[in-house]
Amino acid sequence: MSLSIQILGSNSASFAHNRHHTSQLLKIQDQQFLIDCGEGTQLLLKKYDVKFSRIDHILISHLHGDHYYGLIGLLSTLHLYGRQKELTLIGPPGLAEILTIQLKYSETTLAYPIRFIEWTPGEHKLIYENYKITIHTVPLDHRIPCCGYFFKEKPKKRRINKHMLPEKLSPLQIIALKNGEDILDENGKVKYKNEDISLPPHRAFSYAYCSDTKYNPDMVPMIRKADILYHEATFGEDMKDRALRTFHSTAFEAADIAKQADVNQLIIGHFSTRYKELWPLLKEAKSKFMNTELAIEGHIFEVHA
Amino acid sequence: MSLSIQILGSNSASFAHNRHHTSQLLKIQDQQFLIDCGEGTQLLLKKYDVKFSRIDHILISHLHGDHYYGLIGLLSTLHLYGRQKELTLIGPPGLAEILTIQLKYSETTLAYPIRFIEWTPGEHKLIYENYKITIHTVPLDHRIPCCGYFFKEKPKKRRINKHMLPEKLSPLQIIALKNGEDILDENGKVKYKNEDISLPPHRAFSYAYCSDTKYNPDMVPMIRKADILYHEATFGEDMKDRALRTFHSTAFEAADIAKQADVNQLIIGHFSTRYKELWPLLKEAKSKFMNTELAIEGHIFEVHA
Repeated sequence: MSLSIQILGSNSASFAHNRHHTSQLLKIQDQQFLIDCGEGTQLLLKKYDVKFSRIDHILISHLHGDHYYGLIGLLSTLHLYGRQKELTLIGPPGLAEILTIQLKYSETTLAYPIRFIEWTPGEHKLIYENYKITIHTVPLDHRIPCCGYFFKEKPKKRRINKHMLPEKLSPLQIIALKNGEDILDENGKVKYKNEDISLPPHRAFSYAYCSDTKYNPDMVPMIRKADILYHEATFGEDMKDRALRTFHSTAFEAADIAKQADVNQLIIGHFSTRYKELWPLLKEAKSKFMNTELAIEGHIFEVHA
Repeated sequence: MSLSIQILGSNSASFAHNRHHTSQLLKIQDQQFLIDCGEGTQLLLKKYDVKFSRIDHILISHLHGDHYYGLIGLLSTLHLYGRQKELTLIGPPGLAEILTIQLKYSETTLAYPIRFIEWTPGEHKLIYENYKITIHTVPLDHRIPCCGYFFKEKPKKRRINKHMLPEKLSPLQIIALKNGEDILDENGKVKYKNEDISLPPHRAFSYAYCSDTKYNPDMVPMIRKADILYHEATFGEDMKDRALRTFHSTAFEAADIAKQADVNQLIIGHFSTRYKELWPLLKEAKSKFMNTELAIEGHIFEVHA
């Protein structure tokens, strides 16, 4: 498994029907990214047995409370748990000010450094990268500055299957093979062609997180061919007017974006409290884009190599 | 029943052992007061079927996150629920600034007015009163400015038992009786002596909330003879040094304060996560003050007339 998303909370605005505010945990290989952090996220992390210490990146989409009111509590808990290693926090202008003022009045100096990366509203750019992944911002169209995120694995190396190797190779030769190079003999001539003794790399996977936003086809080129797209579907088509007025999307619109962007799978979430039953939203989305799933809390969506 | 306290959360610092951050709901006659509001308090209010709309007063003791991180979320939810009537919020300097900045960035104007009453650190004074109760601040000794609250019912009126009345009295005569006056005949002479046809008033009850604080006998005169005292007991005597260092109390110290103040009942709470089992803290407190109870979440403590 290369990439997985666990849904922690998937309701919009208020708590209802046993659904919580938005938060999800993305794992890419051995890296964990917490995306949005509504009130009570730390309780949900405990519920699902997530090791707090392994979360090294937190991303916030916007400053509506149902997407970030749990952040200051989680940061405080990491401090209490004795965290010392750096945490990367990616979010909107204003977030640092809000956190700073709360830490000031509690006279708390966090025991670990935060590397805070602030995006510029409306800008589509590479906001973060490390040796395994890149993250691009995806400007969304909401009532206040709001930003989706496109996570993509970097191209992977060729794979070694020991049983294919004709002889025991040195570590340097193994690295060369993984990098796609041939193995040469002592005279510099090709001894083994790379493609004969190594396997093609696994595909680099990608995940797009788009919440909150009204229907906005401008995002399509930025999330094209994502393996999984999470797109908000606060309402159904029955509430299309309200969706438009409040800068949210319907399930059908989410599916329409998924279809245009030619993604593999769509997850819809951020459900309005008015929908106790979610199957009508799922049915509506599937009518446009069949491979759609509901963001049921606790559920893990995986992409397998 | 005149006065009750329901414990919503009673753990200190972090969530553990299924215990939540500090919050409790005080009911005095038909008035409801939410005291402290740790993260997730609104989830606990839902769990215990509390009607959000009936909470007209919220009091915050200090700006450590485990006592107030749930406040902004609760205020937002009241807004979403369409609240329009005024809410009284009593708290420390800094709280208004923290709330204002969060509302600013979410571009939210609450649909209801907040009457914000800010106390001055270290000051013992009448901070609020209405026609039924008074609230005095109780300065506590913690790492940052922190304030307890002493709630007291105003003296009650004499009681009417219709079966005791010799004749049908007018509404004005009933009011006179409740105010302790005699009933006069048309010549202005005493027809019925008040004490012959009315009952003495019920006693006015009181509740003292003292968290967080280190052992601080200065508070004793301010909470004397409370019907119920809630006093923090973060640690046991085994951790007395740590209690002193972190400006918290031991269970024994809480009981000592209860004894000195001659209260009727003591509730201890704000338990350190290190105590999975709470009975040792209860045993320790009872050794000094027998009528002690643990602040078990969900439990309701009542004072009956």
